[in-house]
Amino acid sequence: MQFHHEGYVSTDPRIKAAAGVGLDRPAELPDTVDVLIVGTGPAGMITAAQLSQFPSITTRIVERRGGRLAIGQADGIQARSVETFQAFGFAERIIAEAYRITEMAFWKPDPADPTRIIRTARAIDDPAGVSEFPHLIVNQARVLDYFAEVMALSPTRMTPDYGLEFRGLVNTGVGEHPVEVTLARTAGEREGDEVVVRAKYVVGADGARSGVRSAIGCTMAGDQAFHAWGVMDVLAVTDFPDIRTKCAIQSGSGGNILHIPREGGHLFRMYVDLGEVAADDNGAVRLTTVDQIIDRANEILHPYTLDVKNVAWHSVYEVAHRLTDRFDDVLPDELDTRTPRVFIAGDACHTHSAKAGQGMNVSMQDGFNLGWKLAHVLTGRSPEALLGTYSAERQPVAKALIEFDKEWSTLMATRPEDLDDPTELEDFYTSTAEFPAGFMTQYPPSLLVGSPNHQGLATGYPLGKRFRSAPVIRVADANPLELGHQHLADGRWRIYAFADAPAAGEPSALADFASWLTTSADSPLVAFSPEGHDEGGLFDIKVVYQQPHDELDIRRVPEVFLPRTGPFDLIDYEKVFAADPRADIFDLRGIDRGGVIVVVRPDQYVASVLPLTATVELARFFEPIFTVPVLAPSLG
Amino acid sequence: MQFHHEGYVSTDPRIKAAAGVGLDRPAELPDTVDVLIVGTGPAGMITAAQLSQFPSITTRIVERRGGRLAIGQADGIQARSVETFQAFGFAERIIAEAYRITEMAFWKPDPADPTRIIRTARAIDDPAGVSEFPHLIVNQARVLDYFAEVMALSPTRMTPDYGLEFRGLVNTGVGEHPVEVTLARTAGEREGDEVVVRAKYVVGADGARSGVRSAIGCTMAGDQAFHAWGVMDVLAVTDFPDIRTKCAIQSGSGGNILHIPREGGHLFRMYVDLGEVAADDNGAVRLTTVDQIIDRANEILHPYTLDVKNVAWHSVYEVAHRLTDRFDDVLPDELDTRTPRVFIAGDACHTHSAKAGQGMNVSMQDGFNLGWKLAHVLTGRSPEALLGTYSAERQPVAKALIEFDKEWSTLMATRPEDLDDPTELEDFYTSTAEFPAGFMTQYPPSLLVGSPNHQGLATGYPLGKRFRSAPVIRVADANPLELGHQHLADGRWRIYAFADAPAAGEPSALADFASWLTTSADSPLVAFSPEGHDEGGLFDIKVVYQQPHDELDIRRVPEVFLPRTGPFDLIDYEKVFAADPRADIFDLRGIDRGGVIVVVRPDQYVASVLPLTATVELARFFEPIFTVPVLAPSLG
Repeated sequence: MQFHHEGYVSTDPRIKAAAGVGLDRPAELPDTVDVLIVGTGPAGMITAAQLSQFPSITTRIVERRGGRLAIGQADGIQARSVETFQAFGFAERIIAEAYRITEMAFWKPDPADPTRIIRTARAIDDPAGVSEFPHLIVNQARVLDYFAEVMALSPTRMTPDYGLEFRGLVNTGVGEHPVEVTLARTAGEREGDEVVVRAKYVVGADGARSGVRSAIGCTMAGDQAFHAWGVMDVLAVTDFPDIRTKCAIQSGSGGNILHIPREGGHLFRMYVDLGEVAADDNGAVRLTTVDQIIDRANEILHPYTLDVKNVAWHSVYEVAHRLTDRFDDVLPDELDTRTPRVFIAGDACHTHSAKAGQGMNVSMQDGFNLGWKLAHVLTGRSPEALLGTYSAERQPVAKALIEFDKEWSTLMATRPEDLDDPTELEDFYTSTAEFPAGFMTQYPPSLLVGSPNHQGLATGYPLGKRFRSAPVIRVADANPLELGHQHLADGRWRIYAFADAPAAGEPSALADFASWLTTSADSPLVAFSPEGHDEGGLFDIKVVYQQPHDELDIRRVPEVFLPRTGPFDLIDYEKVFAADPRADIFDLRGIDRGGVIVVVRPDQYVASVLPLTATVELARFFEPIFTVPVLAPSLG
Repeated sequence: MQFHHEGYVSTDPRIKAAAGVGLDRPAELPDTVDVLIVGTGPAGMITAAQLSQFPSITTRIVERRGGRLAIGQADGIQARSVETFQAFGFAERIIAEAYRITEMAFWKPDPADPTRIIRTARAIDDPAGVSEFPHLIVNQARVLDYFAEVMALSPTRMTPDYGLEFRGLVNTGVGEHPVEVTLARTAGEREGDEVVVRAKYVVGADGARSGVRSAIGCTMAGDQAFHAWGVMDVLAVTDFPDIRTKCAIQSGSGGNILHIPREGGHLFRMYVDLGEVAADDNGAVRLTTVDQIIDRANEILHPYTLDVKNVAWHSVYEVAHRLTDRFDDVLPDELDTRTPRVFIAGDACHTHSAKAGQGMNVSMQDGFNLGWKLAHVLTGRSPEALLGTYSAERQPVAKALIEFDKEWSTLMATRPEDLDDPTELEDFYTSTAEFPAGFMTQYPPSLLVGSPNHQGLATGYPLGKRFRSAPVIRVADANPLELGHQHLADGRWRIYAFADAPAAGEPSALADFASWLTTSADSPLVAFSPEGHDEGGLFDIKVVYQQPHDELDIRRVPEVFLPRTGPFDLIDYEKVFAADPRADIFDLRGIDRGGVIVVVRPDQYVASVLPLTATVELARFFEPIFTVPVLAPSLG
């Protein structure tokens, strides 16, 4: 966390100085905005939190509900999401209040007496150690609270606009704010009144029954039939020994439960399978009472019993696997002629079961993918073409999610005797651990992901996958840190220069690269970021040396890695790292000791892997992504 | 963090439900209070934060200043303090914003050219790994903010009463609230008005010129002469390579600097030695300007230069090593006849240099020691005799601190050529690392620390020293945790039962001990805590088994380790642990595998080590500490 460099900060350094549109932010929704986000669920809130970091962008997020969500449905938080929370600054706090999943237990009918369940296996969560972050369970409402805090403490001082419902939108194609959105007030003295807002861009994060989706003519394709689950968050006294462990429970009668302990040490959630919903059900399944769900749970848990003392929440949950074919308003035949103005994200694009604990996580990655791209375009950094990559990147991820979830749901609903192999369920869980942890996403080569020609130089940083952290030592203060945790959600690109072997100051490929970065007209720094590369810039450029930190002379490190910052032109010492001999990042991530450039996108995905000498390729990679800045005309 | 067990908690679980005196807390200072604390520095605020946890106790903390401290002098945070912050719930947040010290560099005159300094050594901070917590630098104002937050979120909803200055006190010896304190308003419309408050107890945490100390007739003995330091918090551009590393710098001219990087990545503090203050100085040293301090720093740093861009704060700091002989109002000849009513803590008791970064830390441990004792007496749990242990325990700690600081200050002020050994300074630093980290305190046997007869059963838990954490696995949810981090600042005693070898449910010393705890009239649980031992109780009783967690059948664990809690009588599963095979606590802490009881005080100091069979000794240990509760007469 860097602060004090613009003068002494006495209070919480997490509170950023108000700036730009945050200086006199109107309480009422303005007539025109840069971005209007519909819906304050995880997809909408992360998009808003990301955009709130940009003082020049007016973003508003509207919500039909009159206020904060009190109790949320979703609760599964993958390691990838916790990693994302770290970038937004609240991982350590949400970890402290969440339930942490470290193991999953599998219960099945006792072969000797199929009326009784027995524990047949325990599986370690994340056995391969794919992330240094934990797998958590915490109420979605708390996740939203933390994103709301990020927005409130940002330079733009954003808060959600509650009590406004989406009614419709039309892209007029006219003017700077072509999208005309009609909202209606759902509360207060003016309840029912319509409000019209004109936006440059609209994000529909308005859930499974998305009005924005309908307005742009997307349809959801997939299952015809729904599957029903009774779900309850309860406090209970039980003799079931794994009540504080995540469990998949299959009974001899064919019933099954997904059991999820919740935060706080006492509450737990059970998903009780209610089967496929018949075509002529006409909503009958929704009449299932919580007592019926509890009775069914007791049958499945036999010989154990569940004495429910308090029901915090329950619902009957009907779901189908469905997906839209596009995440924006550009029809297939328009792809070459225009760029999108309206986007959809989260449940508005993909619905599926809650079984794999994926929904909130994939939705947040939708928003994380979209937020910085909107910011790049709205701040004039990038051409509008950037926006086409959102649907192109996220729709296939949603497709993969739905396929995974189908397989997992089907397996969970299969009677043990019908499985090909008695351990099929736990084998599937263990073998696919990377998927539920959120790390299977790999964007293919595109405008934003370079060619894999040089992948062999950094085998631990697969192109298009998220940049995986590793320990390093910060040279200036000998602090052991996680390199990936220095990548905050500030919309900047990261360029990591992994040095070749010579010491700092000696002739080296690194020294040549540093010199090119600073001086060449082709350097992305020179071409696109003439204001420098501190916090407000486009790039955060770091170097990692192979030498132990105490053998490095920081005075001889190239200046591009010790940039000047703030009104006092201070030296930023926090960009120079050394490998940690106890866990050498060069070994851990398969980095070539001849030196490597790794470029990472603002959403933490690896964009390019190049040798230190590949300045031409690096320049060419950035060329279509950035716009040459328009400089103010000289007054001389 | 446990919550939801009294019903669903939708908002931040750190916000405790208001209760007792917090339900309608008056904004104005009441006429009578249980505890009046004077001064909102670290000693006062930790005492207030501890007392705020008890709904039945009315505590007020008054401060002469009109509001929150904006910039504080102290900034060194020992690992022991971070451990204490963890117990109060804010360690992870303060760590995230602090500077972390991992190494210290030593600079001396270059033997080849004594006009130039060179780095002669680097020392690892905490080389022995005495704590899992880091050594930090963070502004005292932020520490106070966090304690204020703890108070505000507590059941009593405490906030400091600013703008009230201490004028005097008298112990009238009359009534329930015998101490009459006179305050004066320092701000607002009624500025200058006197306010009289009657208190059961008064804590003077009002600094080096303490009025409370004068009122109870304590004097400060110690050095006659003062030593002066110029101290500045600045932003600068420099070529000194260790500007982000803590340094002790001695120049050839005899000057010396203690250099401390500060939080935020840019600010740093330098203490520049200005020498002993002459008897006839008459305040001349205080006229030293910041430019003079900067010039002196540049001389000492030669050949490096310091281009100061911004001065956040500076001061000339004169200090003597001084100490009071008692920390309360009981004169030596009254020790057998009465218990204290007025206490002093922190700088009111001990002044010394800032060199060893000790002041704020020792002051907070003063308050942590006192807070729970006041709470025990005020809630009727303990006899007033408990209060006599505060001065008895803390005065010797302050004495040791002052001796340590004298030695360190003298060494730092000694010219290199006058040292017996050229590495004397760094050797002293390294060999005494446990002291500055805050872990040398060892309270001798007393009412609150048992006899060392059985110390051999748990060599890693020295009696009277702080309970050192170690990793364990929580059985119910297979979570890897630090056992010590489960000890929150809630005023409860911890009884750890380290099990003997038999499995849960088998005949064992542990099973016999558990049975005795639950049923014997001599058991402290039965005798003193009839209301049970959940959050509101006196004890938090945990068991640690030797078996791996997945070989333990939690259904067979004795009930005393699975207590019922809250209005729904739920089972608390968070008291049953297993050794972590990757770091076995029995091996790490030298715990006898025949089973051991370790009793830990509410302030985290080890009070007793006993075999599992020593029920008589355990009962005898607690007997003088607790009062048999007065039960309401039966209405039958």
